[in-house]
Amino acid sequence: MPATLRDVAAHANVSVRTVSNVVAGHPHVSDAMRRLVLGAIAELDYRPNPVARTLRTGRTGVLALVVPEIDVPYFAELAREIIDAASGLGYRVMIDQTGHDHDRERALLTGADRTMLFDGILFSPLVTRSELLEMHPTTAMPLVLLGEHEFDGRYDHVAIDNHQAAADATQHLVQTGRSKIAAIGAQPTQAFATPRQRGAGYLAALDEAGIGPRPEYLESAARYHRADGYAAAERLLDLADPPEAILCFSDLLAMGAMRAAADRGLRIPEDLAVAGIDDIEEGRYSRPSLTTVSLDTPFIAREAVSRIAARIDDPTAPAAEIVAPHAVLVRESTTASTPL
Amino acid sequence: MPATLRDVAAHANVSVRTVSNVVAGHPHVSDAMRRLVLGAIAELDYRPNPVARTLRTGRTGVLALVVPEIDVPYFAELAREIIDAASGLGYRVMIDQTGHDHDRERALLTGADRTMLFDGILFSPLVTRSELLEMHPTTAMPLVLLGEHEFDGRYDHVAIDNHQAAADATQHLVQTGRSKIAAIGAQPTQAFATPRQRGAGYLAALDEAGIGPRPEYLESAARYHRADGYAAAERLLDLADPPEAILCFSDLLAMGAMRAAADRGLRIPEDLAVAGIDDIEEGRYSRPSLTTVSLDTPFIAREAVSRIAARIDDPTAPAAEIVAPHAVLVRESTTASTPL
Repeated sequence: MPATLRDVAAHANVSVRTVSNVVAGHPHVSDAMRRLVLGAIAELDYRPNPVARTLRTGRTGVLALVVPEIDVPYFAELAREIIDAASGLGYRVMIDQTGHDHDRERALLTGADRTMLFDGILFSPLVTRSELLEMHPTTAMPLVLLGEHEFDGRYDHVAIDNHQAAADATQHLVQTGRSKIAAIGAQPTQAFATPRQRGAGYLAALDEAGIGPRPEYLESAARYHRADGYAAAERLLDLADPPEAILCFSDLLAMGAMRAAADRGLRIPEDLAVAGIDDIEEGRYSRPSLTTVSLDTPFIAREAVSRIAARIDDPTAPAAEIVAPHAVLVRESTTASTPL
Repeated sequence: MPATLRDVAAHANVSVRTVSNVVAGHPHVSDAMRRLVLGAIAELDYRPNPVARTLRTGRTGVLALVVPEIDVPYFAELAREIIDAASGLGYRVMIDQTGHDHDRERALLTGADRTMLFDGILFSPLVTRSELLEMHPTTAMPLVLLGEHEFDGRYDHVAIDNHQAAADATQHLVQTGRSKIAAIGAQPTQAFATPRQRGAGYLAALDEAGIGPRPEYLESAARYHRADGYAAAERLLDLADPPEAILCFSDLLAMGAMRAAADRGLRIPEDLAVAGIDDIEEGRYSRPSLTTVSLDTPFIAREAVSRIAARIDDPTAPAAEIVAPHAVLVRESTTASTPL
């Protein structure tokens, strides 16, 4: 006969409630107690019935983190921070990668596909506002949007000020004495908020510096991958009057752009300064190290988890817009004075 | 009254079975049909009852991928490949990061913590053989081990030949004319298979080349992060007789080691050759690009998913050891003849 919760409690000589807390991943259980209970669970081969528990409590203690691509370092680093923050509130996080598949995103948001049981969604994929409205009926799952969206009063939203972040990075490039400043990361459609906002911030900072915009200096990138940055930088460096500096709308784009410049024998930053946005660890170790805009990912993670936890407890709470701090981190790719 | 499967079928003018297939993520549904059904699901705000379905079929269609750290690029890239491969067999993948927490790993493997419903586990964390035996009673969840384990006839296991991979990379360094060849990635304990096997392969290749081992050239790394590679390279370069080449047991270690060498003004590869193991995308764009051992991650992902699918269908099938091919990819960090 299968072991029960009571058997485990008796075996470990603790209360049924303690066993239940351990099984639920409750944070206020001491490590020693958890080990004791997990030991008893293993010895008795006890398997809690998650279906029964979910029916009983209506809660799973699980959050879904939905990202477009888990192998993009920014999303991987964000995922790690969110897992850490969630753990502090007694939640576990399961990661789902949608690969830009709108049907998949729709299935998660509508609750149509719920092979996984979870209490709320932290949602990061690029979808337009109208797509989101269509995908997520108000009656559906508690939802907090991360990053790539605009606040519309309907959903909790945690992100940086994309416009200001791009403007600050551009202003830094101006301050290093460069005036031929290009950008990589525009997109042909204006539907997505991040490229549009970063592009506007870049243009605003140029304008403030009295530098007129040059359309050929605003390069598009279909995705924000290294290969897209490489290809866009090649197009910029092929111009009759190539730029002296490039602001990339993500660090990964900047990694590709730096490699493209190096492959032409250009010195960074002497011949070409490069800056990114994200502050992924890769850019701290690269040669040259990458000037970038730090997004305070731990802050974003903490706020996102605390908002979703509040929303699960009270689905009718008014939606909040949380703006995470950002800061330009100046490194070698814009300011080193000696060849690396 | 909530919409039912039948309501959705009637609304979309398709069979109940088709709706059920779409909801279950069945692969043999045309895109047009899936869109039609998902549209009807959204319009009717239909929410399938995953609890009822799981009770009915005993299957969830979900695999758990358990990795120690999702922000280590190799695991992120492996995760992406596994998600792609699983999708082809009609499975979805949820990723769980254990952060080297053995209690958490135990809870997943024993089935003690099953807030998520899944049919099988692809398990990658570093645990010793005895820990694994203790954590995973034979009656528990279908399990396929990835990478960091030794085949013991009990579990399906998909990995490269770690010994040969390290030997091949070392042999390449010997062939470039270097004889002072160090390694980074040993661990004080012999309990974990990967560092032990890679260390043995490194030593075997040196021996074959008639190069005696130098204990001070075998550096340890507690984790395989950039910072560990940086610190270990500093220790090696501080030696009275520093190495001319370093084999790092992961690409991330190599990224740290290359940066440490650059910070001392050393040229790579002229003053110091560096090689890694993993073939993460970062190493294709870094300056210099990184010589490494490619693990054929898509092969590993395909085999792992096909093994777990077979094991879910037949839990009593004999366990198999699957060795993935590997290949040394020679890039600038060991062979470039001009300064980068």
